[in-house]
Amino acid sequence: MAARQATRPNPAGGSGAGKVFIHFTMSLDGFIADAAGRLDWAFGFAGPSPAAVRKITDSIGAVLAGRHGYDLGMMRGDMKVYGGEWSGPQFVLTHQPGDTPADPSITFLSCGIAEAVSTARAAAGGKDVVVMGASIAQQCLAEGLADEILLHLAPVVLGDGIRLFTGPLQQPITLRTVSLGQSGDLIDIRLSVVK
Amino acid sequence: MAARQATRPNPAGGSGAGKVFIHFTMSLDGFIADAAGRLDWAFGFAGPSPAAVRKITDSIGAVLAGRHGYDLGMMRGDMKVYGGEWSGPQFVLTHQPGDTPADPSITFLSCGIAEAVSTARAAAGGKDVVVMGASIAQQCLAEGLADEILLHLAPVVLGDGIRLFTGPLQQPITLRTVSLGQSGDLIDIRLSVVK
Repeated sequence: MAARQATRPNPAGGSGAGKVFIHFTMSLDGFIADAAGRLDWAFGFAGPSPAAVRKITDSIGAVLAGRHGYDLGMMRGDMKVYGGEWSGPQFVLTHQPGDTPADPSITFLSCGIAEAVSTARAAAGGKDVVVMGASIAQQCLAEGLADEILLHLAPVVLGDGIRLFTGPLQQPITLRTVSLGQSGDLIDIRLSVVK
Repeated sequence: MAARQATRPNPAGGSGAGKVFIHFTMSLDGFIADAAGRLDWAFGFAGPSPAAVRKITDSIGAVLAGRHGYDLGMMRGDMKVYGGEWSGPQFVLTHQPGDTPADPSITFLSCGIAEAVSTARAAAGGKDVVVMGASIAQQCLAEGLADEILLHLAPVVLGDGIRLFTGPLQQPITLRTVSLGQSGDLIDIRLSVVK
């Protein structure tokens, strides 16, 4: 493994530019959803306190998500991002934009991942962009577009499901642990991508 | 997820009976070895201090490992378990016992996983049995023979290799976080299996 390198300045440039961070609850064996793509497996664990969630949501200026989660209803009603504790522009990257979403805060994007990140960054107004959806997160990591990963590691081995990290990669992605803690049953790990 | 249950008494019974724990350095994406089965990927990370390693090795009465690691030379010379900082009975579970190992502390076992764990327990003299080798660890977890998992989580996404956890499982394995810390570049997580 290479020696530590300084983190590259944020590609968006300028002081106050937000980060792009990937945010998931993940099982010990690397799954973020069950084999049907559902998140129910995680509901039984005590998670971050409302204050801890607020600290995260306060940093977020825009959401970039995938179509699979949108189709599962994850941006509507009870499944709104952060349980409805956050509101702002949400972008869904999809090859099949179809109808315009009923929620005016949601915009379908049909472009490459770099352009999608750029669009979300512009809408975030200097705050962070949070990346949801395994496929989108993988593309961001592979293309060097993610600055941080925030994981809530759940103490369970699921055995099957949808992985956050799928390979192979052109080369390993080296990270640096920024913070480590526990909230409820979960282990909170924030890592920055060494670019 | 089911509510917390009390941990079942150690199947070996009796006070002072050691635990069976699985011990690995694992990448953030779940790999413990590269695609060739080698461990070099982990060598660049600063790990536990000698004192921290000694605290672990002091608890260990026997090693239970797999044939793959043995064949890669992981129990000889520079690759001795815990860098030679521990010595004691070591068992290698294999379908092809072949020649007797040159090292008299190493015994080939050709039996089922439960009998292998039982043999290692008996040799551990009340201390812990540490399980090395992904296949052996998976069998121990699947058969409910492991009490704890000690992971040193490395801040890297490898993309490919040999996974510690492979599925699918008959049912998810629920764990409880016993301790959490950092040593060097690594995140140390000790979890107990809820039985």
